[in-house]
Amino acid sequence: MSTEKHTIAVLGGTGAEGSGIALRLAHAGHHVILGSRDADKAARVCAELRQRSPAASLAAAPNAEAAAAAQIVFLTVPHAAQQATVREVQGALAGKILVDATVPLVPPKVARVQLPEGGSAVAAVQKLLGEAVRVVAAFQNVSAHHLRDLAHAPDCDVLVCGDDPEARQTVIGLAADMGLRGVHAGVLANAAAAEALTSVLIAINMRYKVPGAGIRITGLAST
Amino acid sequence: MSTEKHTIAVLGGTGAEGSGIALRLAHAGHHVILGSRDADKAARVCAELRQRSPAASLAAAPNAEAAAAAQIVFLTVPHAAQQATVREVQGALAGKILVDATVPLVPPKVARVQLPEGGSAVAAVQKLLGEAVRVVAAFQNVSAHHLRDLAHAPDCDVLVCGDDPEARQTVIGLAADMGLRGVHAGVLANAAAAEALTSVLIAINMRYKVPGAGIRITGLAST
Repeated sequence: MSTEKHTIAVLGGTGAEGSGIALRLAHAGHHVILGSRDADKAARVCAELRQRSPAASLAAAPNAEAAAAAQIVFLTVPHAAQQATVREVQGALAGKILVDATVPLVPPKVARVQLPEGGSAVAAVQKLLGEAVRVVAAFQNVSAHHLRDLAHAPDCDVLVCGDDPEARQTVIGLAADMGLRGVHAGVLANAAAAEALTSVLIAINMRYKVPGAGIRITGLAST
Repeated sequence: MSTEKHTIAVLGGTGAEGSGIALRLAHAGHHVILGSRDADKAARVCAELRQRSPAASLAAAPNAEAAAAAQIVFLTVPHAAQQATVREVQGALAGKILVDATVPLVPPKVARVQLPEGGSAVAAVQKLLGEAVRVVAAFQNVSAHHLRDLAHAPDCDVLVCGDDPEARQTVIGLAADMGLRGVHAGVLANAAAAEALTSVLIAINMRYKVPGAGIRITGLAST
């Protein structure tokens, strides 16, 4: 568990996945700012999350303000909004870690792997931002269903991909704060596997009629 | 477990992954023909596998003969040899199930996901073979290290992707025969995730200094 408490922005934090991530980060003692274009919705989600975790430190702000105020920025918007959101906050990201949880689903066939150009959605983000921002891809495979249920630790590992091992380690610490085991999964290009895996998990959910299949990495010494 | 015993060809069956698959299939009572271009090496591997499983029914033959004699054909050759091997045996595959375990590693950076054109290696195989052959992608993530150790069931699930659910079910039955849990993982395009995941597992093996990391799907009722 990381002992340091951060100010963390969760862009797209009013969505199912984003609000689940925000909830667990805030529940662990971090100060979380939900980034959203809809102030009313953001306030509503903050209130709802505080009901689940009364001591949580949560606020809401427009994306650019949230990113500017934060030390670490999570990106949890739909794939279609990913690039525009990154451009919107780009000026506030220099020197920070951007944790991208984007999954390149292509509705309506979300249970079918449909890779973006370049293999992963996050590759384009790192290209756009350049070396000034350390981009880490993670949390694509943890179901919102499990994230929002604080009574149970999700039975799912977090594949943490990024070209900067120290930034990966920071994200693995945040995952631990959230009750999740993060695993060093290699360079940022490897996020293609984690992104694609989400469609596989959706296919499995549909086939086996379960709410939130996940993955575990086996063969590691317990960490 | 499937009760029916099949004649199964394992093309590339003298390699580490192929021989592990052949061993477990033969150990389960199937008649296995190792397909290889090198008759001496194939005979040597057969002898070695028989030492591990004395009752196993194993033979060796050139790839095209092995494929012709079999009801089900496994493809376990290196990515660079995949297309040529498929062309070599194409005439013998009509009406059969081809189980492709190919992983598109690009040496020397095998711990880095480097997707082939079209996202998955197996997509090109299905395109080449057309509808006459039911192609199922599976077994990309099970380490040879674990396959060859009959004393232990590998702690790894098998993601089974294919456009024909019945063919997928047959492969899930074969996985069970081998001591592995197969999971319906959706259409053949979803094999991109399983193929990419192997580079992630290699990255994990290197980072954590373990011999054979694997994956488990969580959140399923036990099957």
